[in-house]
Amino acid sequence: MKTVLMTAFEAFGGETINPSWEAVRTFDGKEIAGARIVVRQLPVVFATCGEVLTRALDEIQPDRVLCVGQAGGRADITVERVAINVDDARIPDNNQQQPIDQPIEADGPAAYFSTLPIKAMVAALREVGVPASVSQTAGTFTCNHVMYSLLHWIHTTNSKARGGFIHIPYMPEQAVHHPGVASMATSSVIQALETSLQVILSTENDIRVVGGATH
Amino acid sequence: MKTVLMTAFEAFGGETINPSWEAVRTFDGKEIAGARIVVRQLPVVFATCGEVLTRALDEIQPDRVLCVGQAGGRADITVERVAINVDDARIPDNNQQQPIDQPIEADGPAAYFSTLPIKAMVAALREVGVPASVSQTAGTFTCNHVMYSLLHWIHTTNSKARGGFIHIPYMPEQAVHHPGVASMATSSVIQALETSLQVILSTENDIRVVGGATH
Amino acid sequence: MKTVLMTAFEAFGGETINPSWEAVRTFDGKEIAGARIVVRQLPVVFATCGEVLTRALDEIQPDRVLCVGQAGGRADITVERVAINVDDARIPDNNQQQPIDQPIEADGPAAYFSTLPIKAMVAALREVGVPASVSQTAGTFTCNHVMYSLLHWIHTTNSKARGGFIHIPYMPEQAVHHPGVASMATSSVIQALETSLQVILSTENDIRVVGGATH
Amino acid sequence: MKTVLMTAFEAFGGETINPSWEAVRTFDGKEIAGARIVVRQLPVVFATCGEVLTRALDEIQPDRVLCVGQAGGRADITVERVAINVDDARIPDNNQQQPIDQPIEADGPAAYFSTLPIKAMVAALREVGVPASVSQTAGTFTCNHVMYSLLHWIHTTNSKARGGFIHIPYMPEQAVHHPGVASMATSSVIQALETSLQVILSTENDIRVVGGATH
Repeated sequence: MKTVLMTAFEAFGGETINPSWEAVRTFDGKEIAGARIVVRQLPVVFATCGEVLTRALDEIQPDRVLCVGQAGGRADITVERVAINVDDARIPDNNQQQPIDQPIEADGPAAYFSTLPIKAMVAALREVGVPASVSQTAGTFTCNHVMYSLLHWIHTTNSKARGGFIHIPYMPEQAVHHPGVASMATSSVIQALETSLQVILSTENDIRVVGGATH
Repeated sequence: MKTVLMTAFEAFGGETINPSWEAVRTFDGKEIAGARIVVRQLPVVFATCGEVLTRALDEIQPDRVLCVGQAGGRADITVERVAINVDDARIPDNNQQQPIDQPIEADGPAAYFSTLPIKAMVAALREVGVPASVSQTAGTFTCNHVMYSLLHWIHTTNSKARGGFIHIPYMPEQAVHHPGVASMATSSVIQALETSLQVILSTENDIRVVGGATH
Repeated sequence: MKTVLMTAFEAFGGETINPSWEAVRTFDGKEIAGARIVVRQLPVVFATCGEVLTRALDEIQPDRVLCVGQAGGRADITVERVAINVDDARIPDNNQQQPIDQPIEADGPAAYFSTLPIKAMVAALREVGVPASVSQTAGTFTCNHVMYSLLHWIHTTNSKARGGFIHIPYMPEQAVHHPGVASMATSSVIQALETSLQVILSTENDIRVVGGATH
Repeated sequence: MKTVLMTAFEAFGGETINPSWEAVRTFDGKEIAGARIVVRQLPVVFATCGEVLTRALDEIQPDRVLCVGQAGGRADITVERVAINVDDARIPDNNQQQPIDQPIEADGPAAYFSTLPIKAMVAALREVGVPASVSQTAGTFTCNHVMYSLLHWIHTTNSKARGGFIHIPYMPEQAVHHPGVASMATSSVIQALETSLQVILSTENDIRVVGGATH
């Protein structure tokens, strides 16, 4: 039986909830597409989020990893293509630290590409009626840090696991405090994550469809 | 027993569904806050939408009227403040007509303000966790036409009815075809409309809270 | 010889300059299309902006009036279609007052349409390479207040003057402090205003071209 | 005497001009901050843009390289942080080719970071009144391809050159055809490029200031 590790974050940036956690925690212990789902929450702290993740990876040795984070302001589910080797915090993290232009791994490569079938995921999400697109940047905050740490762990441990990152919009309850900003119902996010898991577990090679950006 | 007329539109602009109809039709025949709900669909046709509405108003003689329409691209529920006396179609209507700068009522005033408690509605929607804001323009298409026709009917028939207009975002199923554009789950829209009805039926005088725009 | 009154505002909302004043003040005393240009600055104060304007109108008795204001966040020159009879301040004015849902003129109509050829203005601006569009709302702050006061003065004094309002984006020097927000070079704004004046002075009847909004 | 190579693109995507070329071509043969400027135009063709660039690099052996491209829709000057090793064309290039998820260099790293002082450039642009920010993605079209090719050439030839990429908004003349979309005057872009060149030629180590994104 395969194991999937799903991660989400605690609240940050003045929010009292994190939509990634509200959605991801509902999967803990579930069985989807023949795989067992294990869920972990990560701190929004540069100094520890990568370590908490890699400890979980060492312990669980998952076959697939799907990390999820909040992208307040984005209107749809965005499947991240790439993580880059830099921390550049626009706001302080939950430990009041704000690193500027620091590499995540001093000897790591400049970037890692997601090893999930990102195009197939987007296609499947649209198919079930959930707005989704490929994103060419996961930012330079803890979401990108975690995605980079995940792929660095996979690479350096020679793990056969595949992994990547999904950003989700604000929940409606959050957007209430940000007039005019997009949101997505938690039920839609949960549906999106379940569909993503099914794609992740059943797709060997990604499909070739448009998903790029001119800039 | 009070009667509330709710209206929504048929699909237009290349869409196969209209989220206003998907949400509003679920209210037909319901009883909310002691009032009976009557639902009607309106054509996205400048030449007939006002007439279909006023025939329904004449027949039903409602106490409250809540007209609903799709605002593809807006991220939250927007409660309209004002309807203006002009048709100016950015795209052809469902009858292939595209009026430019034509008054809706040749002898009508330049505008009518909503007679619903728009600030109380926005406050209540936010209270229940649905993103909402006041809108200062209902556009110049059939939504504005219907809102103007409604308020003109109320004014010219000396009706004691109160009425206004709510714009709603795309449904997720529609936004799938408009990457990066906001959407709202139909369940949230339905919750928003039910909350709006309760406010409309229970609020005599609107509250005084910020809801304006600097431009 | 015809006379054109142009107005612009002082800085507000935390800004140290107002792009409308930076552009409009360059026209003072000029002669354009055979008309003499008179320029006045208006306070961003609900209690006095209308009065300062109407005193200038009484004194100057202009043939045409072009009021200009800042719309921080808009990307192009927006020619306003309509002013509505309400003050609803999102932020305090320069006199620390923040009126909520108060009529500008207790006995005035709900709205006045611009009496300038708004479609011809937009077409001419695009023709000379300046991005422009019709706007269906001038907001509910002092810009809308001034536009309403202008058209109310024209209406109640039976003046043959024609008048309206143009909103302009931030200047680049302001947008520097609002990362990601649009701006327009003052030279482009000045070109837009000069082109607008020529259209205003030469166009009897507006042209019929698309300029509406679906919402 | 130092040499700076500046590149820009030909028009693409239905446009008849490319603002990058309109701005960059004015620098050809100039001397700025003691350096000689050489300008080259690149094709918007995946198959050849990298080759045209590297031939110019081989020939000119520049000390600094500043590549510039159009980012229609962005509101400010964006200094790119990173180029990624993938072509994923949202639209066909000028040779009607539309590669999907193809590596730019089969054996190249996943990404290269700009070796220009991107934070100092943004700070200097804001200082002179031109809106600017750091961008975390150069997209997956020919702009990213050229930036990646440039940095790959620098890396593989052990060149001491430093180089990177700047995206610029539409020109106003283009935005006229995209209502509501941001633009920037060519004079502002030229000022931005001159300021950038001065920073590039005088800054050894980048400054540490905020320029990241939470997502």
